[in-house]
Amino acid sequence: MFAEWRLKKGVPAYLQIKDYLKEMILRSVLAPGVKLPSTRELSRLAGVSRNTVILAYQYLEDDGLVETVRGQGTFVTKITTGRGDGVTLHWPELLTDYAALATELDIEKTEPRWKKGMISFKSIAPDPELFEAEEFKKAFLRRFALEGKKLLNYLRNYLKGKGVPMAGKDLLITNGFTEAFDITLTALTRPGARVICENPTHNTAIKIMRLHGLEIAGVRMEEDGIDLKELERVLAAGDAAAVFLVPSYHNPTGVVMSPEKRITLLKLLAAHRLPVIEDGFNEELRYSGSHVAPLAALAGHGNNLIYTGSFSKILFPGLRIGWILADQELISYLESIKRSRNIHTSFLDQAVLYEYLQSGRFERYLKNARRVYRERHKTAVELVKKYIPAKKIWGQGGLHVFIELPEELNARQVLAESLKRNVIFMPGDIFYTDGGGHNTFRLGISRVNRDQMEEGFKIIGEIVNRMKAK
Amino acid sequence: MFAEWRLKKGVPAYLQIKDYLKEMILRSVLAPGVKLPSTRELSRLAGVSRNTVILAYQYLEDDGLVETVRGQGTFVTKITTGRGDGVTLHWPELLTDYAALATELDIEKTEPRWKKGMISFKSIAPDPELFEAEEFKKAFLRRFALEGKKLLNYLRNYLKGKGVPMAGKDLLITNGFTEAFDITLTALTRPGARVICENPTHNTAIKIMRLHGLEIAGVRMEEDGIDLKELERVLAAGDAAAVFLVPSYHNPTGVVMSPEKRITLLKLLAAHRLPVIEDGFNEELRYSGSHVAPLAALAGHGNNLIYTGSFSKILFPGLRIGWILADQELISYLESIKRSRNIHTSFLDQAVLYEYLQSGRFERYLKNARRVYRERHKTAVELVKKYIPAKKIWGQGGLHVFIELPEELNARQVLAESLKRNVIFMPGDIFYTDGGGHNTFRLGISRVNRDQMEEGFKIIGEIVNRMKAK
Repeated sequence: MFAEWRLKKGVPAYLQIKDYLKEMILRSVLAPGVKLPSTRELSRLAGVSRNTVILAYQYLEDDGLVETVRGQGTFVTKITTGRGDGVTLHWPELLTDYAALATELDIEKTEPRWKKGMISFKSIAPDPELFEAEEFKKAFLRRFALEGKKLLNYLRNYLKGKGVPMAGKDLLITNGFTEAFDITLTALTRPGARVICENPTHNTAIKIMRLHGLEIAGVRMEEDGIDLKELERVLAAGDAAAVFLVPSYHNPTGVVMSPEKRITLLKLLAAHRLPVIEDGFNEELRYSGSHVAPLAALAGHGNNLIYTGSFSKILFPGLRIGWILADQELISYLESIKRSRNIHTSFLDQAVLYEYLQSGRFERYLKNARRVYRERHKTAVELVKKYIPAKKIWGQGGLHVFIELPEELNARQVLAESLKRNVIFMPGDIFYTDGGGHNTFRLGISRVNRDQMEEGFKIIGEIVNRMKAK
Repeated sequence: MFAEWRLKKGVPAYLQIKDYLKEMILRSVLAPGVKLPSTRELSRLAGVSRNTVILAYQYLEDDGLVETVRGQGTFVTKITTGRGDGVTLHWPELLTDYAALATELDIEKTEPRWKKGMISFKSIAPDPELFEAEEFKKAFLRRFALEGKKLLNYLRNYLKGKGVPMAGKDLLITNGFTEAFDITLTALTRPGARVICENPTHNTAIKIMRLHGLEIAGVRMEEDGIDLKELERVLAAGDAAAVFLVPSYHNPTGVVMSPEKRITLLKLLAAHRLPVIEDGFNEELRYSGSHVAPLAALAGHGNNLIYTGSFSKILFPGLRIGWILADQELISYLESIKRSRNIHTSFLDQAVLYEYLQSGRFERYLKNARRVYRERHKTAVELVKKYIPAKKIWGQGGLHVFIELPEELNARQVLAESLKRNVIFMPGDIFYTDGGGHNTFRLGISRVNRDQMEEGFKIIGEIVNRMKAK
């Protein structure tokens, strides 16, 4: 299988080898347990240095796709790939009037289009010859003709690399997850409709659902993800319009849904033929353990998985880039809705992100960020155990630790006291769909060091202890 | 008045002089007819070279604020400044449930805020120290810490320079005009509400109004702007929620509303106490004649003028930056709605735009673009007259010419025939609020040269002539 190997120019060789092997593993060409060639052997086969292969294997291990047993070699890990629980939905029946009207009124789709060779009096956009390309370069704009196509192609490969089947799917670039979720709900829900989600869940998602006038059916979380028994009851209780799930590094609990639960969950959802909106939030920041495939990869070839993600959070906060990968018919509607709201996402953001991603720096950043956050999370959990008398500490990682206090305590009171001593955190109730969570709070740890955690947790712990004593 | 003159660093001297004089003229310190100091005298007073002053005077003339009479000197032109027809609205009575809910659910406004000196466990945004600032620089991102503040300050001065009173007002940066209009309607209109606008008008505006389920009350256009008699009837006919107007280089007609009409219009609107959404679309691309103040400048100190504009079209198409200048209470609601849709506008776009604007290149670009478009528009009108048997050619400029054919002709049929001969343009009916305009079309001229116009108009003319003969 390495015989037809050809290195492309412009992309680091170790990344090409890593991506090739990753695809082979996710397509089960290389099955779990299979031993990879030794680094020496592969370096000869691929015509690259041995260090290049070592680096590629390290990245694969970091991705949770292989593990190295000292003295024995590198083996493919067990990857869950149960395929076939997606279902095929007929979108026009599910779409709102807003979605239909946005598409009907989208002149990009209804008016004749310019074709090469035509004299066009259609556009009134300014003459590109007047644009001061040179000056914009100085203002950091080296690629304003890029028009997003390259980033789209990059993302297609990137998502394929996660094992997501791409046939019949299209990508839409959005201004972050917020917009992705907002326009998807605009397309699929009418006021009063029911949407099922984890409880607690991402507060921005709750806000957007409430703004859409939806009935939010929250299903409680267990340590390995959503409670399937309760989900079954909620599904049975009535017609839901959609399901919204954050299966990896769930916000706020930090829970990663187990591979087994993912498979069972998909079977359950398939029986109800529901659109499933999956938020890939922070799934890149996996800390340890095997590769966990997104639902969109596990579902296989149905069209009901709507997979969203964002680069706004994982790279830096000022960038607004997210994406929706979904059935191409649905994407066509979502595209018209987006066009009616803000035309398109900044080409400059897209160009800069593309430049950065394709340089291979993204992988390096992730490798480094995972290590730093893994250590910080471990430290945070240790320090919480030391100082804060929690009933439960949630999660397997993430940029945060979610604390459940004894029932009789109120986290907002703890916050009020903490603020007096200059410590701030996020009360948990804002993440609950049912007014619950009064005794919970979320400690964000992405921007603090060990000393600050030690000092801050100690203060919080003292306050909690004092309240418990009352 | 030049005694206290101090030059700032980092901004070209001619721009500083121009801006200073512009402010003096718009504040009527320098009244219409007043003679400016000679270039020699001002160069001595301001301590700059004579060429600097000459350049500043040229830009003022370009802005329509002064005129030079050969052999006599440079004089302030007649500027319409009738102030005081704004009204004070009480926003909570006008806002939709969506706007109120978006604000209520905006944790930026409801949760305790981080203050300097606090240990914060509130955020879960990634650690900035992990961001690869150096690598992002290479990816053209030199200023990701800018966070938009500088652009906001620049825009405040820029809009002040147009004579708009800024007291009690705030600015919101949006993803272009489309978003500005969309979120403003989200805040102020419920489905079924009536919005009054020009007929024809900007097709994107019509689309957004229809998506909001609004009743669109279009008022016919005259050669100097909206028909005030008809507007009066429409205003009298029932409660409108808002008025949307494009007073300068109106799309699609190219009409610039006369200063006199602006004053009368504002008086009429004040009597009805309506929010007025003014689109400053392309008003920078003024071709000739006196400075025409936006409605937001003429209205004075009420709070009902909502002034929007965009840099997305006038600089280059990939950038998504627009703005809303309005009463600060209203802006607070709009900000929460925007946050619920896509958090904020790309900081990178904001940073690049700021860099470009403050370098003084924007003024140069406008000067050049105005000249080019003025000539092209003149040529276009000549060629239309030569080739196309129009009933009426609309407009005083713009990136387009709007053609009215004899009543019995259908522009869509002309388009169908033109397409066969590789000529494309925009049928006029999409700009009409009432299904009218079958005999109209818009010729965009921003991206064609004289030869293409000659060839294309000739083909259109032949088709029209053939249809007339039938």
